[in-house]
Amino acid sequence: MSHNKWDIMKKQSSLITGGECDMSEKLLAGGIEAGGTKIVCAVGTGPDDLTRAVFQSGSDPDAAMREVTDWLRAEQGRRGTLRAVGIGSFGPVDLDPASPKYGFITSTPKPGWRDADVLGRVRRAFPEIPVAFDTDVNAAALGERRWGAAKGLDDFVYITIGTGIGAGVVAGGRPLHGLVHPEAGHMRIPRVPGDDFPGVCPYHGDCWEGLCSGPAIKSRTGFAATEIPPDSEAWRLHARYTALALGNIICALSPRRIILGGSVPKGGLLGGERFFAMVRAEVQDVLNGYVVSPALEQGIGEFIVPPGLGDDAGVCGALSLALDELDRAG
Amino acid sequence: MSHNKWDIMKKQSSLITGGECDMSEKLLAGGIEAGGTKIVCAVGTGPDDLTRAVFQSGSDPDAAMREVTDWLRAEQGRRGTLRAVGIGSFGPVDLDPASPKYGFITSTPKPGWRDADVLGRVRRAFPEIPVAFDTDVNAAALGERRWGAAKGLDDFVYITIGTGIGAGVVAGGRPLHGLVHPEAGHMRIPRVPGDDFPGVCPYHGDCWEGLCSGPAIKSRTGFAATEIPPDSEAWRLHARYTALALGNIICALSPRRIILGGSVPKGGLLGGERFFAMVRAEVQDVLNGYVVSPALEQGIGEFIVPPGLGDDAGVCGALSLALDELDRAG
Repeated sequence: MSHNKWDIMKKQSSLITGGECDMSEKLLAGGIEAGGTKIVCAVGTGPDDLTRAVFQSGSDPDAAMREVTDWLRAEQGRRGTLRAVGIGSFGPVDLDPASPKYGFITSTPKPGWRDADVLGRVRRAFPEIPVAFDTDVNAAALGERRWGAAKGLDDFVYITIGTGIGAGVVAGGRPLHGLVHPEAGHMRIPRVPGDDFPGVCPYHGDCWEGLCSGPAIKSRTGFAATEIPPDSEAWRLHARYTALALGNIICALSPRRIILGGSVPKGGLLGGERFFAMVRAEVQDVLNGYVVSPALEQGIGEFIVPPGLGDDAGVCGALSLALDELDRAG
Repeated sequence: MSHNKWDIMKKQSSLITGGECDMSEKLLAGGIEAGGTKIVCAVGTGPDDLTRAVFQSGSDPDAAMREVTDWLRAEQGRRGTLRAVGIGSFGPVDLDPASPKYGFITSTPKPGWRDADVLGRVRRAFPEIPVAFDTDVNAAALGERRWGAAKGLDDFVYITIGTGIGAGVVAGGRPLHGLVHPEAGHMRIPRVPGDDFPGVCPYHGDCWEGLCSGPAIKSRTGFAATEIPPDSEAWRLHARYTALALGNIICALSPRRIILGGSVPKGGLLGGERFFAMVRAEVQDVLNGYVVSPALEQGIGEFIVPPGLGDDAGVCGALSLALDELDRAG
């Protein structure tokens, strides 16, 4: 998405909420989607009621996070008291509440952000309210569960394919962390015979992310995903590799639904509908009838779906983290 | 494991529990590990206090399950009242309590067992007590959590490599079912260059199970896993493919521990210790430092481990299902 679009949305949102309605009885919360390029912030009660702002992540977490917290404070002045803030962050992040680095970004190659204390900076700015923290993709998954394409589901996966490939996993109704957090983009998959593209992952070469992220597509074809001709072999390969990875996710996690977000599944000149149709057919081919469920047969169209919240999944997910925190507190 | 060993264990157990101690205050439960070849049954309160019996699964579920329930009744007569029964079953099984086929084995190729109502047969024999049902590997995982190598862990995976490859997943302290149940043995992994063995999986050819199950090893080498020379290339390939699959499991599920059970990881003439050392080193090579955790570095020896309950993981797991049911009922 272009920054222009966000600027417009921000202006629109400001206009919409300019005439203040009665927010006092609703739970006003803040959401921070901290990405490697930009940080999207929102204040509101849900996807239909958001004021937003976008800041550059840059290479100075202090400066960037000060812009974020200053904006949240200003919105609080305009819209009423924030009850909680949620942060969905790019990673890898430390999600262990017992760790001294809980809420830090850990081993990122992004300049300035290695060992950056994201959660602490927000907590210090808002010491009086709960601040929740999770991965960007776990947050997006929870946003989709609250408002989007995963309503009522306790076991599902949210995947984003863009600059990288990430997966948020909800299992038993809760985001899965485990030892660190899922990194399903780095699963290894078999190569399509004859395809000798080495992949772009600096760690694994031809893992799923190495073969199918936006930069991988650019490296393979010379084109951004948005510019590839609809009849390009690249789309067929991308659908096949993505299906092999989704097959592994189905075998490992047995999700009730897979949400495919991010820029690449929009399908560029091919179109999202055709791309999703290709992926669904390839997933059925990969599983070959072994896992028996109507959801994987006639129901495949409702099993692999785009995000219900579209590009808002991330920031709404961050907001959802905050609301979940308030739900837990009763 | 030979049947002789089980017969001896059964005799020993009978001797141990022959002079009856006071069981009235302990929760006496029954466990049924329903496998494709044999059905292992136990009555007791935990792994150190079990009476057991083994029956052939055969091709007549009625006859086999009658032997099982008759034996449980007889043990009840000897040891006191059973409070619950747990069943860990080979599959695929239907785990949806709302389904008319809940507790059935579904699409197995095993003669006579397709659409066999395993749970119903036990419920009808013991209508007065709860009967719990899950996959054999989910049950084994829960047994390892209660008494074995996963004590205190909420997120881990139990894998068995034998006739097939199965995985039980515990996420957030509960067995993961999701849409059906995990079938991680059927994940696709890249081939080792130069290895053209086609694999034996009738659905996928060279999925993990197709490359690494006992029958796959036999088909590749002409030898059972117990007979392969320690310096055989087959062990190296097996460790590599298993590590690629475990790497995918780590990326998808972020477990805090992986327990590797079943006959193949015992390592035959190579020995289990050497086999586990090979797998651990290959897992580190596969991940290549991307997922950062001490558990995957210096702690790898405690991260990939054999079952704490050894060959008893399955039947103790079934017993654990029953005890979990009683815990829930308070």
